Amino acid sequence: MDGGGLKPMDAEQLRENAHKMVDFIADYYKNIENFPVLSQVQPGYLSKLLPDSAPNQPESLQDVLSDVQSKILPGVTHWQSPDYFAYFPSNSSIAGFLGEMLSAGFNMVGFSWITSPAATELEMIVLDWLAKLLKLPDDFLSTGQGGGVIQGTASEAVLVVLLAARDKVLRRVGKDAIGKLVVYGSDQTHSALQKACQIGGIHPENCRFLKTDASSEYALSPESLNEAISHDIAIGLIPFFLSATVGTTSSTAVDPLLVLGKITKDRNALIQSLSTNPEYLKNKASEANMVVDYKDWQIPLGRRFRSLKLWMVLRLYGLENLQSYIRNHIELAKHFEELVSQDPRFQVVAPRKFSLVCFCLLPPHNNEDCANKLNHDLLDAVNSTGKLFISHTVLSGKYTLRFAVGAPLTEERHVNAAWKVLQGKASVLLQSL
Amino acid sequence: MDGGGLKPMDAEQLRENAHKMVDFIADYYKNIENFPVLSQVQPGYLSKLLPDSAPNQPESLQDVLSDVQSKILPGVTHWQSPDYFAYFPSNSSIAGFLGEMLSAGFNMVGFSWITSPAATELEMIVLDWLAKLLKLPDDFLSTGQGGGVIQGTASEAVLVVLLAARDKVLRRVGKDAIGKLVVYGSDQTHSALQKACQIGGIHPENCRFLKTDASSEYALSPESLNEAISHDIAIGLIPFFLSATVGTTSSTAVDPLLVLGKITKDRNALIQSLSTNPEYLKNKASEANMVVDYKDWQIPLGRRFRSLKLWMVLRLYGLENLQSYIRNHIELAKHFEELVSQDPRFQVVAPRKFSLVCFCLLPPHNNEDCANKLNHDLLDAVNSTGKLFISHTVLSGKYTLRFAVGAPLTEERHVNAAWKVLQGKASVLLQSL
Repeated sequence: MDGGGLKPMDAEQLRENAHKMVDFIADYYKNIENFPVLSQVQPGYLSKLLPDSAPNQPESLQDVLSDVQSKILPGVTHWQSPDYFAYFPSNSSIAGFLGEMLSAGFNMVGFSWITSPAATELEMIVLDWLAKLLKLPDDFLSTGQGGGVIQGTASEAVLVVLLAARDKVLRRVGKDAIGKLVVYGSDQTHSALQKACQIGGIHPENCRFLKTDASSEYALSPESLNEAISHDIAIGLIPFFLSATVGTTSSTAVDPLLVLGKITKDRNALIQSLSTNPEYLKNKASEANMVVDYKDWQIPLGRRFRSLKLWMVLRLYGLENLQSYIRNHIELAKHFEELVSQDPRFQVVAPRKFSLVCFCLLPPHNNEDCANKLNHDLLDAVNSTGKLFISHTVLSGKYTLRFAVGAPLTEERHVNAAWKVLQGKASVLLQSL
Repeated sequence: MDGGGLKPMDAEQLRENAHKMVDFIADYYKNIENFPVLSQVQPGYLSKLLPDSAPNQPESLQDVLSDVQSKILPGVTHWQSPDYFAYFPSNSSIAGFLGEMLSAGFNMVGFSWITSPAATELEMIVLDWLAKLLKLPDDFLSTGQGGGVIQGTASEAVLVVLLAARDKVLRRVGKDAIGKLVVYGSDQTHSALQKACQIGGIHPENCRFLKTDASSEYALSPESLNEAISHDIAIGLIPFFLSATVGTTSSTAVDPLLVLGKITKDRNALIQSLSTNPEYLKNKASEANMVVDYKDWQIPLGRRFRSLKLWMVLRLYGLENLQSYIRNHIELAKHFEELVSQDPRFQVVAPRKFSLVCFCLLPPHNNEDCANKLNHDLLDAVNSTGKLFISHTVLSGKYTLRFAVGAPLTEERHVNAAWKVLQGKASVLLQSL
């Protein structure tokens, strides 16, 4: 790859091209409000714009960036737009971006301590920092029986604890009893639990997603849990796992953790489930049990130097700024909740706990039959404008709109503008009925 | 987070700080040969250097980068160093780094088509490109029953196909038969298969890691596979999964794929295993079956805009450069193999297929008893110099050194220098016997 073109890796070519990429990304953020938040393309749009095979000869960065601008960006849904209020936010930040850059720059694979000691040790340290920020008890720390690990995603975190619990109980009752194992959650529990059960071989009919309703603000009821457990034990099944949630996806409901039971915090159960020890990965430090090898705490073998990102976010912002950042989003959600409450055509559907507001447009003449379609149409109408992006859920059978505040650039003016679009589209819909 | 400090996200602050980070990373590559390849720190070194909780007030990027230099870098094992010959390479490249930057810049979550259509569509397109580069048959393409997906790691790829196969057979024989399912591989198969079996609830005694030896160059023998399958069927077990490998981890052995059997390429089996469809993720495009939702092709829900990286690598280098890049590494490994062959104190242990050389130092007077310790000591001795990093395996009971060429900056001079260190340390060890 010599001969004037881009080399595989060369410090000065890296510098030159990465500076160009920085400017491209900074310009993207500068203009982010000009894009439709939700991409308005039709399925299959991109295959018409790109060749159907890779080039034989190299192309220039300029050409690629020009394609990003003209072909990729129209198909992007802008999660970092200040007008993004869908799902939950996936915040970027300057510090986080710098951490990603550094991690990609080192490009090391920290599966065992030896493969990059700093990657393992920094992760242990910053996750202890995080546990302290969250005021978790000391036994969650790496100095106790606990210790943290950055999983790739929340789904993986749910899966690995389910596997640890499954194997712990199967060691006691024998592995042929897997068909008797029962998992509990609520009908508000994230689908990651269902997926973890599918992966771990828990029988679908043994997954109890207990019904919740408005009377408990969509939180899991300890009474119905006890009832379900007693019934399952009586018919010879083996309850072994409960997933409780602080802030459910649909409505940020909070399950009553303290009443529901005690957590065990034992890293060994996890490691017993996920450990393998092939010859080609053996090394002195691991054999001597002197170190943590994160490969045994997760599904994958390979892993990035992920903790650099968290470390940089915590240091470059500091605890107080992070707190006020979160509180500001909650204030903005409170503000939106007030706007909704002041318009008699709308209703707040579930109590706001954090920065999510669940609401709906009321059907005229209390005609509940058309309520779901009305809100479905309102969602489509506002998202099609490209001026904001919100999502929905269903609570007690009711189609419900979700307005989740939290993108890094969102200010009060964006919330106000989003509300104006919602009101305007509601007026049009109600008039057309 | 106002008041003069770093804002959560601001285009100009992002630009200014990211330019600094580019220079830091470019300088790292400029100096990469000056670091010990294998970190020489002792377990626990970092907790002595960092505070035990996060700061309340923000710190400067300058302070963080200075800590990276003085505290993190000594604990880094430099996978991108030209003197890195351990495990297999995890290559960075300028194009790959730019792709990572752009993906981190957009910071979108492409679990469903709707959440960023370009992320899903570009991935389908570039994986079709890749399938064509690898000359896979057309039914691997997204236009057929196949279609590609970028998994987080190879371990996850093994796991999801195992789950798809498990659930396909269990739908036929009933899920209570999970204890009868049998998996096959060789004793050279990567530990990812064992881990996938653990996760998927396959009984460990039903995992057949069939013995290989030098006579088949450590490839899986179709005869011993047939024998094992016949025996398992005869005792009422259900064979359902074979993992064959092109380039095993220990010695890059190649299992005879064509003789071993046919691959099915059916995305539906995968999706049936991994799909969930919660209300809060429903949307028109998905309901109409018009799009691919990659959340149902993988373990996690969330996913990055990963295909940007592959797209940029393929475009900025082009097929011909990528081919010559790989061929160059194979040539360098061939060169190392010749160096080993020319020194009668050493032996090449397994045939070199690609860019890995398996070799050992012969014990004096053919004293096999001390051979393993001798090579173990040689590994320690060369890795302790910090001048190169190699790893090991065990083949037919023999402790074997692995020299894997492939870091992006490796040239013939680095291979020659590494060999000199190996020869020098061998002389010292042999003299001390």
